[in-house]
Amino acid sequence: SGSSDLIRATLFPGDGIGPEIASSVKQIFNAAEVPIEWEEHYVGTEVDPRTQSFVTWESLESVRRNKVGLKGPMATPIGKGHRSLNLTLRKELNLYANVRPCYSLPGYKTRYDDVNLITIRENTEGEYSGLEHQVVRGVVESLKIITRQASLRVAEYAFHYAKAHGRERVSAIHKANIMQKTDGLFLKCCREVAEKYPEIKYEEVVIDNCCMMLVKNPSLFDVLVMPNLYGDIISDLCAGLIGGLGLTPSLNIGEGGIALAEAVHGSAPDIAGKNLANPTALLLSAVSMLRHLDLHDKADRIQDAVLKTIAEGKYRTADLGGSSKTSDFTKAIIDHL
Amino acid sequence: SGSSDLIRATLFPGDGIGPEIASSVKQIFNAAEVPIEWEEHYVGTEVDPRTQSFVTWESLESVRRNKVGLKGPMATPIGKGHRSLNLTLRKELNLYANVRPCYSLPGYKTRYDDVNLITIRENTEGEYSGLEHQVVRGVVESLKIITRQASLRVAEYAFHYAKAHGRERVSAIHKANIMQKTDGLFLKCCREVAEKYPEIKYEEVVIDNCCMMLVKNPSLFDVLVMPNLYGDIISDLCAGLIGGLGLTPSLNIGEGGIALAEAVHGSAPDIAGKNLANPTALLLSAVSMLRHLDLHDKADRIQDAVLKTIAEGKYRTADLGGSSKTSDFTKAIIDHL
Ligand SMILES: CC(C)[C@H](C(=O)O)[C@@H](O)C(=O)O
Ligand SMILES: CC(C)[C@H](C(=O)O)[C@@H](O)C(=O)O
Repeated sequence: SGSSDLIRATLFPGDGIGPEIASSVKQIFNAAEVPIEWEEHYVGTEVDPRTQSFVTWESLESVRRNKVGLKGPMATPIGKGHRSLNLTLRKELNLYANVRPCYSLPGYKTRYDDVNLITIRENTEGEYSGLEHQVVRGVVESLKIITRQASLRVAEYAFHYAKAHGRERVSAIHKANIMQKTDGLFLKCCREVAEKYPEIKYEEVVIDNCCMMLVKNPSLFDVLVMPNLYGDIISDLCAGLIGGLGLTPSLNIGEGGIALAEAVHGSAPDIAGKNLANPTALLLSAVSMLRHLDLHDKADRIQDAVLKTIAEGKYRTADLGGSSKTSDFTKAIIDHL
Repeated sequence: SGSSDLIRATLFPGDGIGPEIASSVKQIFNAAEVPIEWEEHYVGTEVDPRTQSFVTWESLESVRRNKVGLKGPMATPIGKGHRSLNLTLRKELNLYANVRPCYSLPGYKTRYDDVNLITIRENTEGEYSGLEHQVVRGVVESLKIITRQASLRVAEYAFHYAKAHGRERVSAIHKANIMQKTDGLFLKCCREVAEKYPEIKYEEVVIDNCCMMLVKNPSLFDVLVMPNLYGDIISDLCAGLIGGLGLTPSLNIGEGGIALAEAVHGSAPDIAGKNLANPTALLLSAVSMLRHLDLHDKADRIQDAVLKTIAEGKYRTADLGGSSKTSDFTKAIIDHL
């Protein structure tokens, strides 16, 4: 089925509230006549030996084929002998950059109304190497690995992104005053790439100072690029500035032009199936995916409708202090399209 | 000189604005009749071979003898063949815990008015091991070391502090979902100590989530204890919530009962010698030192006078948006004693 004009995209509705918020996205995409045909994949019920995780091989093949996908929250089942679902996807699809546009939502009040930045996180190495061992009893070590290849790749993505999106500055976040070799290499790679983009300002900010500046005055930042763990920390900090993970879009960029958008919040099993979930993060992630596909008209239209609905304040889900059902919020967005 | 009733304490005025703010502390301590006699030490002008740094051996001996000290900002001279001044002090004096009380200053407005927490940072190991090397060209690694001994020691300090200061809860901050062995050992040690303090609530919070919660609602936290790098990041983040490092006291606890209070802000060479510096962080650090010495009356008296002067707003230094000289601000505090 499906006309040849349609772009095929993989959809992982995910667990818990995943299917409900994915359904909201599908309805809104239909209403906005987005030329996308979804290919749905669920997490398996047993470990797939080819992925060593509950992520199925078929679903990975689907993303590899379509080169674009959208993912709801996935809760890694408890137990031994398999890998975390999120880490499996990052690894198998070589999702090397996690990109999070983070801006204050008009009309949704937090302590900050001046956030407008992009965090770009290296997503494959650093403190996430998985290399750890006991040296002697009571002494353990873990290895942080930084490579030239992965650092150049994410730096290249960050500068390319900054240029393509009319951003002025890239800040590389580091702790090279302590980790001179690892973070030093990361900075060296950022500097090399910066030279190729003379129109983009480049600066280096130590992570502790960066966090202090972010909570004092986030408008000091534009595009931030950083090694894995700093990105993990700072992207969540930034999400906190604008209201939390329920509002924050996220896009993973992989080798070979793959892009997997994802809602990074949890699967909220307590409210699953109750028509109470907030689809905003998944919707705005889907918008990031549309921008990646250069479907800017559709992206603008949907983003505007989401922001208007939230700003209006008439329909808001419980996590945003309202009492709307997912379906009513979704309908309100469709009415604003 | 000096009566035998006086407590001898080492004073490192430090560089840049250090001598001015140290002078402010001395005047206020005099006015409040604090029974302390200062033993002043300056950073040397050449590398001391016994410390491999510009920190002199005599000054270390002074702290070891007095067991208590106060330190202004020190700028590590640029060049090779010597160690950072701050890291030398931490290492040589075995300053294993960095303690930062962080509370909103009444009358000094930031985006937050409900901060009242303590960060306790392991200060000797973790990502600060200094162990780094190139594996092959373009691949570098650094080692994060966590030991049972250092983890138990800082956890013990955190729970002891919580109990002694009437605090209700200790949160251990970690990333054990990724660094299962290193951060896992840190958590295991915290749990062991927690069992000995059934009256103190204990919880574990993943660092990314912690940062998000801190910027959304810092009143969720009480005492936080964490490995070195997370402590570096979170203690600066928390300082940002209340206005910055110029307002934040810091106390380092060493083996053998040593306590070295320090202002953690920079030496601000641009305004040095101009009577413009803000002595608040050094003063509040000195107050932390007094509390460590169980001189709570003096500590309360000075802290109240500092907070009243800031709250009144008539005398504020430039960094707090005022135009007072250091000397006028100091005099105002003395008038409030
Ligand atoms: C769940 C956890 C392993 C993960 C990470 O640390 O990367 C999460 O915090 C994220 O940011 O996606
Ligand atoms: C200057 C730097 C080495 C130091 C650290 O990382 O510990 C500083 O940030 C601090 O917190 O005292």
